[in-house]
Amino acid sequence: MRMSALFGRTLRETPADAEMVSHQLLLRAGMIRSLGAGIYSYLPLGYRVKAKVEAILRREMDAIGAQQMLMPVVHPAEVWQASGRWHSVDETLLRFQDRSAHDMVLAMTHEEVIAHLLEREVESYRQLPAVVYHIQVKFRDERRPRGGLVRVREFTMKDAYSVHADVEDLETFYPTMLRAYRDIFRGCALDPIAVEADSGIMGGSASHEFVLLNAEGEDTIVLCTSCDYAANAERAELDKRPSSQSQGPGQAREVATPGCKTIEDVARYLGVPREGTLKAVFLRTEEPEPRLVFAVIRGDLEVNEVKLSHVVGDVPLRPAEEDEIRAVGAVPGYASPIGVRGAVVVADDSVLLGGHFVAGANREGYHLAGVQYGRDFRGDVVADIALARAGDACPRCAGALRVERGIELGHCFKLGSRYTAARGITYLDADGAEHPIVMGSYGIGVDRLIAAIVEEHYDEYGIRWPVSVAPYLVHLVSLAREGEERDQAEALYAELGAEGIDVLYDDRAGPSAGVKFNDADLIGCPLRLTVSRRSLSRGGVEAKWRDKDERVVIPADEVAAYLHEGLAART
Amino acid sequence: MRMSALFGRTLRETPADAEMVSHQLLLRAGMIRSLGAGIYSYLPLGYRVKAKVEAILRREMDAIGAQQMLMPVVHPAEVWQASGRWHSVDETLLRFQDRSAHDMVLAMTHEEVIAHLLEREVESYRQLPAVVYHIQVKFRDERRPRGGLVRVREFTMKDAYSVHADVEDLETFYPTMLRAYRDIFRGCALDPIAVEADSGIMGGSASHEFVLLNAEGEDTIVLCTSCDYAANAERAELDKRPSSQSQGPGQAREVATPGCKTIEDVARYLGVPREGTLKAVFLRTEEPEPRLVFAVIRGDLEVNEVKLSHVVGDVPLRPAEEDEIRAVGAVPGYASPIGVRGAVVVADDSVLLGGHFVAGANREGYHLAGVQYGRDFRGDVVADIALARAGDACPRCAGALRVERGIELGHCFKLGSRYTAARGITYLDADGAEHPIVMGSYGIGVDRLIAAIVEEHYDEYGIRWPVSVAPYLVHLVSLAREGEERDQAEALYAELGAEGIDVLYDDRAGPSAGVKFNDADLIGCPLRLTVSRRSLSRGGVEAKWRDKDERVVIPADEVAAYLHEGLAART
Repeated sequence: MRMSALFGRTLRETPADAEMVSHQLLLRAGMIRSLGAGIYSYLPLGYRVKAKVEAILRREMDAIGAQQMLMPVVHPAEVWQASGRWHSVDETLLRFQDRSAHDMVLAMTHEEVIAHLLEREVESYRQLPAVVYHIQVKFRDERRPRGGLVRVREFTMKDAYSVHADVEDLETFYPTMLRAYRDIFRGCALDPIAVEADSGIMGGSASHEFVLLNAEGEDTIVLCTSCDYAANAERAELDKRPSSQSQGPGQAREVATPGCKTIEDVARYLGVPREGTLKAVFLRTEEPEPRLVFAVIRGDLEVNEVKLSHVVGDVPLRPAEEDEIRAVGAVPGYASPIGVRGAVVVADDSVLLGGHFVAGANREGYHLAGVQYGRDFRGDVVADIALARAGDACPRCAGALRVERGIELGHCFKLGSRYTAARGITYLDADGAEHPIVMGSYGIGVDRLIAAIVEEHYDEYGIRWPVSVAPYLVHLVSLAREGEERDQAEALYAELGAEGIDVLYDDRAGPSAGVKFNDADLIGCPLRLTVSRRSLSRGGVEAKWRDKDERVVIPADEVAAYLHEGLAART
Repeated sequence: MRMSALFGRTLRETPADAEMVSHQLLLRAGMIRSLGAGIYSYLPLGYRVKAKVEAILRREMDAIGAQQMLMPVVHPAEVWQASGRWHSVDETLLRFQDRSAHDMVLAMTHEEVIAHLLEREVESYRQLPAVVYHIQVKFRDERRPRGGLVRVREFTMKDAYSVHADVEDLETFYPTMLRAYRDIFRGCALDPIAVEADSGIMGGSASHEFVLLNAEGEDTIVLCTSCDYAANAERAELDKRPSSQSQGPGQAREVATPGCKTIEDVARYLGVPREGTLKAVFLRTEEPEPRLVFAVIRGDLEVNEVKLSHVVGDVPLRPAEEDEIRAVGAVPGYASPIGVRGAVVVADDSVLLGGHFVAGANREGYHLAGVQYGRDFRGDVVADIALARAGDACPRCAGALRVERGIELGHCFKLGSRYTAARGITYLDADGAEHPIVMGSYGIGVDRLIAAIVEEHYDEYGIRWPVSVAPYLVHLVSLAREGEERDQAEALYAELGAEGIDVLYDDRAGPSAGVKFNDADLIGCPLRLTVSRRSLSRGGVEAKWRDKDERVVIPADEVAAYLHEGLAART
């Protein structure tokens, strides 16, 4: 490709609103352009990267026998109503009406369409299992798109769906997909961490996220500093064993705690450790009917609202207001479940450990000491609703947890029969008995993957594309507009092209040598070749790899061999 | 691909709502499935066809130096407001609001986005010309989607855009794109007619459509039976020279024509040919202000409302009501422009030919004879607003025109500066002078192209895919579930796969031989190979080309050579 004809140009200035490195560099290198909030065009250079990333996705999907297909972007509301997500997903799901006032959505994922197809295509166990995928445009109406391609509204996703006769078959297949995902990321020169994840709006029994550690990432993950435990923050567990068993009196008794409205205050005032206290957290939901959710957890821990939401039926929660708290008989600042009526009490399982606690007396200025779970109060539900934080103990090895930010690159879900059982989407087994089809769902966002590659492969001068996804392998610079140097550059361009090597050829008449070298660094093709009077006087072409500083002059007829040797060392 | 694992199944029954052959066969062969009105999924078999068609599109675009990119599906309204099409395009353009109540559209084409990019990317004549394209999802909210993939709402389009320094450069380039389009259609084994076309909502100075003749098509085209003149009905011209020059008196005079409200009646009553009369047609528009459009045309001709609409500024027109007609002083049934006030009179240029006419007297029961254009009335506009019909004379050779139905497969538009001049999207020439960028726009609908291939290549048993786009080249049928026949089939499948030949292998245990053969005919791969006891007893594998009746038995080790020979004869 001649740069004189290339559509799109590099930018010298960093666009003001671009904060993340990948956003800045993809804009500056002339790879992408914004059309609106979270909506981008790929210019020809960027599109080449995207096509190469998609080829890697296809290669690895095809390698595990997944069949490519294509499902639509615009869906009638009915399929989302059938799954319940028309109601349960927030405004991120873009709903609109067509010219006939028919409700429609822009696809953010395709479980519903797969279920719709399964209902019609699969009758018999003979048709199972199967794995399908597509690479298709999707739309998520994010409240705050940011970071260029890291969090967009319109995006391309490779989503795959596996269908199985039973959960055992899904379990058998699932590691195959996890391996394919690792191969995809490796193919893109990325090494994300696989973490246990919350399944969010997808449902299902278990899921894994692939997260690339990145300080600007939106994902929070919890990692053990000693073992390989890793989970996203919504799901991460922790070892809650207290450092000591607090012993108290035989019976709860009221103690005055004037002005002690926080755990901190109470612990200090009474001289007990925070893990000897109970903390109350009040949330409110309107679904399916108005309820106050009273969460109680050991005083040294924090409530994880995602876990709490799952426990009460995946309903939206908001902080409760004071009158709503008082309405159930609780007193803010001095609250405990003891004596409370009409709230759903969710107790973190930490309250089962540790013996006796100091808890609120539901009376201004007073707490109860010696409170014991089971004797003095009970939860309507007891579950793990604790937030894992840096320094907490690992649930596996009790080593210290650390918390990191990251970019979620992929997500695998064991959906089970979440999308089939309720709708009677079944198959007949060899004996003619009916069973719901079991599903898995697996997604990788193509645009975010591209951003992540840049986040991992750049320097102060620009992008350093890995060989596998570079827009061109060679960036050929001609410094002369005419004469022997130019003829040599043109000849080299023709020769490399004839050998099937993708070359970006800077044949532009206008820019100076400095501008051309800066553009080459910014665009980031693996090998830069320069034909100049100087290189010819030294016997050939100057070669410089983007990931090394040194420059060497090689004879023109050895360029292809030199390139292939260097590429082989980089793949 | 083993059919036992293939996602999607063939259907024995023709779906009731499928009228066009391509719709029936694509559904029955398990290629596509409907998700909603005009919205389809491609199952894996159909997706393979789509991928091959897209590869042909890419190949021919790349061959003329077009650069692939990708523009979004969801656009902020602003870019469509800037071009004026936010207002001028009807509900086919799907408008909606995002979560922030921001107006958005689903892309039906991308001139606006190209203009938006040009404004930012192109500064200098050095950056021109350029040709870009993308293959992307689009949405047209058609009132009546029909014919399966022939007229869908969600579709994939290959749209290309060329940008030029001036109209001359566009004119020079344009034939290159027309040639590329012919190569694309030839690559898909289609031979559409290139016709002059109306530019519709795209604007610009000229356009060409590629139309495949098809009785079920929605496009009407006009062709000369003698020369190669061809145009779509909206645009087609005709030779209007009358068969005789009617001579009348020196002055218009009123004649009684009681009860003669039609041209037919008047001509018969007065004994003049229809071409000696004038016909009045009344339409009404509300834009930019309420106006009555009074079209007058020779009595033997009909008004083409598309042409008329262009003449009055591309505004929507509807038939006028009686009181609206009388309000300008015209009398329905006896109307002429003579004495009319307050209407926009558009005269077809046929009124300039033929001397004297009989026209309405704007008085119940009376006409005027001897009416002459220029002396007795004038049009505010004189233009060609006539509809070409079968039997009319060709505008080039005066041969008889014929009218055919067809499917529009592609459209090329010389847009000129329609999308740039008004918005000041300019470049600087070598002297630093500013000029608007000139554009061309070129589109091919991928889904409709697939439907058209099927419309041209089928028989009573199913599809007969051309080699270039067949989902698989070989359909291998194993009739045995086990034993030597099965082993031979498995070995042949492995061998052909090792040679890189795409094979669909019917290894299913359930279906009978008849069902398998029917499925092979329906799916329509070019070569069917059958391994059976019978074929083995005859020394090998039975081979049958989908486009021939004969079956031959060939030794297993000669299959690949036989295939390649047969493919070569078919491409």
